[in-house]
Order: sequence, then structure tokens, then C-alpha cells
Amino acid sequence: MAGYVIDFEPIGRRGTVGADQSILEATRELGVDLVNLCGGAGTCGRCRVQVLDGKVSEIGANEQEHLTKDELDKGWRLACETYPQADCKVHVPPESLTAPQRTQVEGLEVAVEPDPAVVAHPLELSAPDLSDLRADGDRLLEALEQERKVTCTSIDVETLRGLSPRLRSQDWKLRASVREGEIVAIGPPEGRQLGLAVDLGTTKIAGYLLDLEDGRTLSSHGIMNPQIAYGEDLISRLSRAMESREEATRLQQLVVDGLNQMAAVLCEEIEGDREQIVEAVIVGNTAMHHLLLRLAVDQLAMAPYVPSISKSQDVKARDLGLRLAPGAYVHFLPNIAGYVGSDHVSMMLATGLSTAQRVTLALDIGTNTEVCLVSGGELCSVSCASGPAFEGAHIKHGMRAANGAIESVRLEQGKVTYQTIGGATPTGLCGSGILDAVAQLYLAGILNRGGRMDLQPGVQDDGDLREFILVPQEDADGRSAITITQKDVRQVQLAKGAIRTGIQLLLQSKGLAEDDIDEVIIAGAFGTYIDVGSAIAIGMLPHLPLDRFRQVGNAAGRGAILALVSRAKRREAHAMAGKVGYIELASSPDFMNVYTQSMYLGPYRADED
Amino acid sequence: MAGYVIDFEPIGRRGTVGADQSILEATRELGVDLVNLCGGAGTCGRCRVQVLDGKVSEIGANEQEHLTKDELDKGWRLACETYPQADCKVHVPPESLTAPQRTQVEGLEVAVEPDPAVVAHPLELSAPDLSDLRADGDRLLEALEQERKVTCTSIDVETLRGLSPRLRSQDWKLRASVREGEIVAIGPPEGRQLGLAVDLGTTKIAGYLLDLEDGRTLSSHGIMNPQIAYGEDLISRLSRAMESREEATRLQQLVVDGLNQMAAVLCEEIEGDREQIVEAVIVGNTAMHHLLLRLAVDQLAMAPYVPSISKSQDVKARDLGLRLAPGAYVHFLPNIAGYVGSDHVSMMLATGLSTAQRVTLALDIGTNTEVCLVSGGELCSVSCASGPAFEGAHIKHGMRAANGAIESVRLEQGKVTYQTIGGATPTGLCGSGILDAVAQLYLAGILNRGGRMDLQPGVQDDGDLREFILVPQEDADGRSAITITQKDVRQVQLAKGAIRTGIQLLLQSKGLAEDDIDEVIIAGAFGTYIDVGSAIAIGMLPHLPLDRFRQVGNAAGRGAILALVSRAKRREAHAMAGKVGYIELASSPDFMNVYTQSMYLGPYRADED
Repeated sequence: MAGYVIDFEPIGRRGTVGADQSILEATRELGVDLVNLCGGAGTCGRCRVQVLDGKVSEIGANEQEHLTKDELDKGWRLACETYPQADCKVHVPPESLTAPQRTQVEGLEVAVEPDPAVVAHPLELSAPDLSDLRADGDRLLEALEQERKVTCTSIDVETLRGLSPRLRSQDWKLRASVREGEIVAIGPPEGRQLGLAVDLGTTKIAGYLLDLEDGRTLSSHGIMNPQIAYGEDLISRLSRAMESREEATRLQQLVVDGLNQMAAVLCEEIEGDREQIVEAVIVGNTAMHHLLLRLAVDQLAMAPYVPSISKSQDVKARDLGLRLAPGAYVHFLPNIAGYVGSDHVSMMLATGLSTAQRVTLALDIGTNTEVCLVSGGELCSVSCASGPAFEGAHIKHGMRAANGAIESVRLEQGKVTYQTIGGATPTGLCGSGILDAVAQLYLAGILNRGGRMDLQPGVQDDGDLREFILVPQEDADGRSAITITQKDVRQVQLAKGAIRTGIQLLLQSKGLAEDDIDEVIIAGAFGTYIDVGSAIAIGMLPHLPLDRFRQVGNAAGRGAILALVSRAKRREAHAMAGKVGYIELASSPDFMNVYTQSMYLGPYRADED
Repeated sequence: MAGYVIDFEPIGRRGTVGADQSILEATRELGVDLVNLCGGAGTCGRCRVQVLDGKVSEIGANEQEHLTKDELDKGWRLACETYPQADCKVHVPPESLTAPQRTQVEGLEVAVEPDPAVVAHPLELSAPDLSDLRADGDRLLEALEQERKVTCTSIDVETLRGLSPRLRSQDWKLRASVREGEIVAIGPPEGRQLGLAVDLGTTKIAGYLLDLEDGRTLSSHGIMNPQIAYGEDLISRLSRAMESREEATRLQQLVVDGLNQMAAVLCEEIEGDREQIVEAVIVGNTAMHHLLLRLAVDQLAMAPYVPSISKSQDVKARDLGLRLAPGAYVHFLPNIAGYVGSDHVSMMLATGLSTAQRVTLALDIGTNTEVCLVSGGELCSVSCASGPAFEGAHIKHGMRAANGAIESVRLEQGKVTYQTIGGATPTGLCGSGILDAVAQLYLAGILNRGGRMDLQPGVQDDGDLREFILVPQEDADGRSAITITQKDVRQVQLAKGAIRTGIQLLLQSKGLAEDDIDEVIIAGAFGTYIDVGSAIAIGMLPHLPLDRFRQVGNAAGRGAILALVSRAKRREAHAMAGKVGYIELASSPDFMNVYTQSMYLGPYRADED
């Protein structure tokens, strides 16, 4: 059989496909789980991929409809309508993938001039003899000064421990990694300088391994945050850490172990070594930041929710128990407040918010949702306690975004269609599925604006509980039908109401209306997978044309990469964090009123009774 | 009984004596072990003390003879001839004490303007409220900037861990210890800032606890170096460390444990806490320095004996396993070469060598003896492998300076007199006793210039071994008589020959003769206790008038104190280390010739056959 070799990036799947197979068909054969709601009919427009290299079929009619000219020019296609005509390299963005790639680690090449905090200097030293008895370290420091015009004042003690044997085994040739006047690592002259960027989420951790010299992402990897065993949300973890010093240490150790394993996996993929990682940047919400650093959290968990520190910090990796290069530092981007962490700053950095000229709203949706409004060059953020409903918690058939989770729901003329992650038999609903379900029920008139469920076909009521049957028992993998209950709807209303309250109070504080927003940026794993139309339908997001929305995936991770590769970006983040205004929602006099209005389904109205 | 209260400084003994008792009698009653060879007859002149305060009897005839006018003016007296006539404060210099004070920890007040690396800033912060939600650390850094005009860029992570609870428990009043833009400790507003100075010797470790703000020495303590169990000399310890990483770690751990215990004892004495120690300075020979830092030592143990580092270093105490204030640093003064360490630099600092205008020779006598010659503003050092003979090793009846060791010997008209440490029954000879014995035998003509022992009365020869009986069996505590053997004499000749070779080659390198030396400074524990006359008699030291010699005690420890209290002194040490010339003895073409001549007893002659 004649065929072509296709490389799927960045997931690294490769295989041969027949000459008459579409890219979508190729993904099925190669086990790449591409989203396709319409089953390959070209109508849902979800199976977007970017052809990076190779020849493919002409652009089809459905593609003209679903993709902009700019996207088509950049090689974006629908996988179901595109047929390889030669060997190809195809980029699959995370939003086109179903789980388990959902830990969001796409390794985007970031367009920034590399200017890392750690710079490598190759050197060849003279060996000591009776006429030159200088100590090894002194010899190295003097060569740096004379040959590279780099003034160093110290050698990290752990690095120094390996210096003398290494100089001799490498025949006095080496590569010194210098950071702000300190030698933090010594390697072979041809060695690589790696950097580690981490987005430390409450639920997921995404890690990226970079070549610090050219700024390329070499590998990426996602894991669940191992602290989950100690509580799914921030508050339960903070409470745990407050119990005792031992518990706090245990929580820290869990995440440190996870990060060490992640670093090992990332290095393995490129046949590298953790000792080559000379710098790391870690971003996360303030609680994750504090738990990793094992800072006190009592004052963070209680009003007025004050962090131990917000300013950026450089901490030796070894002081955290991280096993990287002996003298490596971890740089922590600044936090803004107790519930607005460095992941938010990182997202703002990655999306260029600080230089945004138009009115821009940026959201990072999660258990805690941070929202930032940019207008007239001013940035202002709020934190909304949106809760874990979109993580599947407190929802009768809720579940995480794992295999078998319903991630997308449509209800047309009383008929339910859905897609599960991995195409598996449905076992429950993940966040985007829950959102879709509530939106579809509202659009179908089964839920009213107040969120009350009407007793229409598909809805059952045992007197105690009213629920809509999405998947009948015989089609479901569980012991029962998969439903959306009246209580589930209330949970979603609470969650979306919190988010919408943040948006409204931000707009009010600047005297702006919904329609003044030029662009809405949606970041984060959940935000990547949601159907924006559904989010608008229930009133979670402003009622604006779809082209004003941009789903940017893990922008926090991308910001961490930027801060890892570029000192200029690091400075930008610090400057930005210093000038972001922060509104404490609960202290706004209008809070209760706005919150009440925000809980209604459908477009937001300030004056609803 | 009428009497007076006497305070003995710095050992801190106090008590009441009768109106007719001498200071010597008072020391006996109070258990202060003062040297007195003549039994209080006023003839040996060894029981020198300095009366700092209070009224005492008139100066006697023996005192006129043994003390200079200058000394008498400064209150120096012989304890046996001085009778208190009021309450007194008396300073007992280490050279007037017998063991067990011989670990040399006298806490001399050092005359230097305090200018420590760590400065404490008392502050009172405003508590956070809804109108001021700044993080605790940011609040602290900003208060330092605004109220104290101190710009800090970071808070040590371990310090930060305790910050938030401490601020709240101390009602937002605190004291921040700042070091080069970093907050290294936080304490209560009235708390002390302590510093630790350590002279880390191969055999002994001396520690001093200081108040960093006024520069006073608060307590001092001496211990044996616990590494002794792994070998008495440098080479055996380096060999042990080279065996494996585990052995190196074990050697490090031993000394770290010792230092931690020492710090605890020092703090206990003043009811302080190790957490109050915000800075330490440690000096030692290059091998001790490397073993403590767990640096590689292979290259240090083999020609050309290159250190891993010579430049001064700042290392977090916790990176060494030292338990001081959470963010405290240890400052290591620079080394000069593989066998000339920071203890030598420290000694040079304490004795003001870098500014010496006259031709000055400074020796720190030990298993390894460092010698520095200053002339015309130039400093040049050598290291002499004098060996452990003066520590009592390789000497038939040799022992350490412990109770029962003969520390002083006189031989007059065939009659041996001696003094033991603690006045105990003699069990052997310590270094100063060995030196005295050889000198006395040489002066009595029992040893000739070549060191051969003549068969005179007191000398016995069983055909195999010739030896001089110092203490007959019936008077000795051991199973046999205490003797000096022909072989012992050879060991002393090797040791003193090595030292003298260093002195001669230094003089030669500058074209100077013995008599050009204006001052000879003798530092170190052994150097404190030796009889300079004996050292001159056997030709170990230059044949110069006694008033050109100055025995300065533990100058290395004093230098560490200076570098702890004063940044100016630290800079002076660094500048000095950078300009000290170093001669590798063995590579000098004249070495063998000079060494041969140096081995003769009596005055050095360049042309002896």
C-alpha cells in the first residue's frame, strides 16, 4: 500500500497512512484522540490542526466556513477534510485533543529573544603547575573575568564540590553557567543548558523543558497535583497545612516529589539529565506557591487573606528539595494578592495584557477564577470563588476530564447527542459537558432564567429530585443513567454567578459596559475546552460576538516559559504585578446585588427582579 | 575573716581571699591553674598576671627583675609576690595558665570599630487591613526602604517561613537582620544579634561568641577536633576523605556536629539561642577548610597541592548543616595555598602584619607551621611540614598537653626539675616539655650540635637505644621512667629543621640576615607555651634578643573575631591574601642545603659541614 508518513506534533505520534485517508482517519489509526463532534462530517469545525510541513489536499468548503483566511494562510485545516499528498508534519493544538492530553502542556514556541538569567560560558583553563599554583576556583573566576569579561563573585558551594574532579576529568575544558555573578553549574564544554518552566495548578501541574540558549521547548509533560489526596480545593489543603508543621511538610514533599519526577520524565524524553537544568520558573496560585515554599498559610486562609510574600523570589532549588543542577535557582514570579497568584501574572504576561491598547478582559477559569480587565492602560484584577463545579465536584454525575467523561452535549428537538473523552462509553460529565448541558437545557426552555427545571419530556421527578436524563441507563457505563439534576444546575449557577460578578464589578469600577469590551481572553485548561457559545448562553461570559473571544490554552505555562527564557519578560512581569489594581469582591458595596443578578441564566441584566 | 573578692578574667572564676594571701595562693584556692615552676619563690617569673582593677601590694624585687617598666606600668605582676589590698579584677593570660585551658579560647576584647556584615534594624509595621492588603514580606521590605533607607531585594526563604506567624505574635514589632540586601533573620525588637568566630584547627577548635553590635566577646569555648578519631594529621584525614564520598561526608559531619555543640554551649553560657547567631566566620588550614565544606581534596593531597578554592566565600550555614539563624551565612576568609590556609591569613590580620613597617617574622607553629616574613611592605609565606613531634607524636614518652604532661624542664648541675600540667604526677612530655628537654640537654653538653647524645650521667644505653632519664620510674605515673631518647632528639631536629628552613629561605629570598628581623611574632597554642629561650637554644628560632619576640596566643581566632565584627577587617584580609607571596619550599634550589644546616642544634650557620 502506498502511503505517507505523518508526524503529529507536539505529542510525538508518527505513522504511515494510506493515500486516500484523511488526517482525521489517520489520527484514529494512530490513537491520537481528536475532538470531532460531527463524526467527520465537516460540520462541527472542532478537529482543527495546523499543517506545518508537506503537501495536502485543496481547501474544502467546510474549511472555508470554519476557518478564517488568516488561519488558512497559516496552514490551519479541519482534519476530516484534509488528505495528505506527501509526508506531513501536523501540529495538533490541545483544544483539538480529547483527554488524556488534557493536562495542557502544549509546547508552544514562544517568540521572544532568548536572554536567560543563566548564561553559559565555554572556557579552556590552563592546568596548574609549580609556576602557577592558583586554586581551581580562583583560576576559573579569573578566566571568566579575563577571557569573557564576566565578573563573578562566588561559586555555589554545591557546584564547587564537583569542580576540581570535573576540571581534571574534562581536561580543563568546561562550560560555566553564570547567574548574576554566581557560578551555579559546571558542565562539559559541549553540554546543554536546560530550563524548567512549571505551571503549578491546584489540580494539574504542567512542565516544560527548554533549551535556554535558543528558547526552544524540548519536551513537555503534565501530571495531576499529588496534593489532591489531601483535598481537592485550596481551602482544604490550606487547612491541612495549618494542622501542624508535619502536615505542611508532607504537602510540600508531595508536590516536590511530583516536580522531581516530572523533571526526570522531561529529561528522559530528550536523553538529558536533571543536572543540566540550571534554572526553573514556577508559577501558581498564591496557595500553591506558599505550600511549595512551605511558607506559613494561617494568615492566607483567614481574612484579610494576606500572603507571606508577593514580590518575586529566587530560591535555591535544593532549599525546596528539587533536584536540578547543584546550584540552580527557582524563580517565582510575583503574586498579586492572597487569591491572585503568580499564575495570573504569568497569564497576563503571556497574553501581552500590560501593553494591550484595547479594552480587554482576561479570565483564567478554575476552582478559583481570576479575571483581569485592561482599559486605558490600567490593569485591575479580581478573584472569584467559582468553586469546583466545573471540575466535576458537587455535581451528581460530575467527573474529571478523563476517559469516558462527556465533554460536549447538544440537544436538538428533544434528542441528546454528546461526545466523550476518548470516545469511550459515557461514565459522567466533565466541566465542559456540564456547562454545555445547562446551556442546552436553558436554550431548549427546559430551564427557565431563574434556573428552575420544567417537567418536560426527558425530565423525571421522584418528588425529591428533579433531573434531566442525558444518557439512559442502558447506554451508560455506570450503574445508572447520567443526568443533570436541579441541584447540579444550582451549582453551575453559583459558579458562573461568581465569575460573572467579578466581570461586572470590574466593568462597573471602570464605568464600562459589557459591549465596551473589545476582546475576551480565556486561559486555562477548562477555558480551552469550553464551548464559548454555551458560556455566553448561560450568562457566564458577556454577550458579545464570538470573534471577540480568544481561547489561549495554558497561558500561565506560556508565561512561565517567557520568564524562563527572557529576563526582559521577567522584568515586565514584575513591573506589571506592581501596577495591577486589585478589588476585593466581598468588600464592594454592590457585591450582593450584582451576585444575585449574576446567578440568572441568560444575558446579564442589572435590574432583574 | 576579713578578705577581698577577686575576679579572674577571662576564665570567669571569682572568690574571696584572706587579707594576707597572695594572688597565687588565691588561684590555688579557686582552682585556677597558674604556671609556677619555682613553687611561689618569685624566681621563675612564670605566674604573670595583669591587675585590671583594685589595689594591691607594692612592686617587689623579683617583679622588678622579671617584668619590664612598661609591663609594670600596665599592671603586670607576678601572682606569687602580689597581695590584694582591696577587691580586684585580675586578667590571667593563657600563657600563665596550665591545661585544661589549653584549647586557647581567651576572649580578648578586640579594638576595632564594629561594622559587621549583618546589621539589625528595629521596625514597627502597620498591620494589614482591607485598605492595605500588602503581603507581609512586601510590607517589611517597603518599611525597611522607607523608614531605614535600606534597600533589600530578598528575604531568605527559611527566614520567610517564620515571618508571618512571628509578625503577628510580636504585634508587628520586629528586628530585621540585613546582610547585603538580604534579610537573613527576624527577631524580637529587643533581641541580640550574635556572631560566631571559629578557629578550626587540625587538633583543636576554638569558638567565640560575640555581640555583633558592640563587638564584645560574650563567651568562648574550646573542644578537640572530633575528626582526630580519623587521623591525627592532615594527610591521614585527607586520605580518609579520598576513600569515598561517604567517608568525606562522615568527616564533615563530625566537625559540623562539633561546631553545632560548641555553638550550643557558647549560647548556653549567656542564656542565648543559636537562632540569634546571624553570622559566622570560620578560619582554618586549607585541609580543614575543604573538609568542612566537603570540597574535593584529591588535588589538595597530591603535588602540586592545589586547593579547590582560595578566594573568600559566603556559604549559607544550613548548606553545611550548621544550625544558626535560619538565613545565616558563614564567611570563610581566603586561603593562600594548599598548605597555607585562612588561619594564617587570620593570624596576619590579627597581628597587623599587612601594615607592619619593620621587618617582621610571624610563625604559627603546629603540625604544619606557616611562616610569614614582612619586609619593605611585602609579605611572603611558606609552609613547613614540621610534623607532629611537638604534638607529642613519634616521641617515646610524648603526649598531648593534658593533665600530667611535663610542660617545662630545667637541668642544672645534673639535676632535673620540671612542671606538669595540673601539677599532677608526670605521665609524659607535651610539646613545650619536649622542646625544653632537648634544649636543656644541648645546653648541658649532653647533646652535641649534631644531636648525638653523649653517655654522661643520666644517660643510659642498652646497646640498642640511648636515652636520658628525666623522671625515674619511682616518680613517674607510668610503668617506666620518662626519658628523652636519641630517636626523640632526631624527631625534634626534623621538626625544628623544617621550621628553620622556612625561616632561612624566606630571609634569603629577601636578601636579609637573621639579625635584620625587628620582631618575631609567635602565634598558636603551642607557640604560646614554649620557652622562647629553649627554641632559640636549639636553633628553631633566630638567635635574637628575647625582647624581639612576641607570643600572641591564638591570633588566628582573634583574626576571625576581627573579620566577624568588621567588614573593613574582612576587606583587609582579602586584600592581604591577594598580595601574599608564596614560596614552595621543596622547589627552592637551596632547599636541601638549608634543610641540612637547619637540622643542627644551636645557632644556624650556613656553612657548617
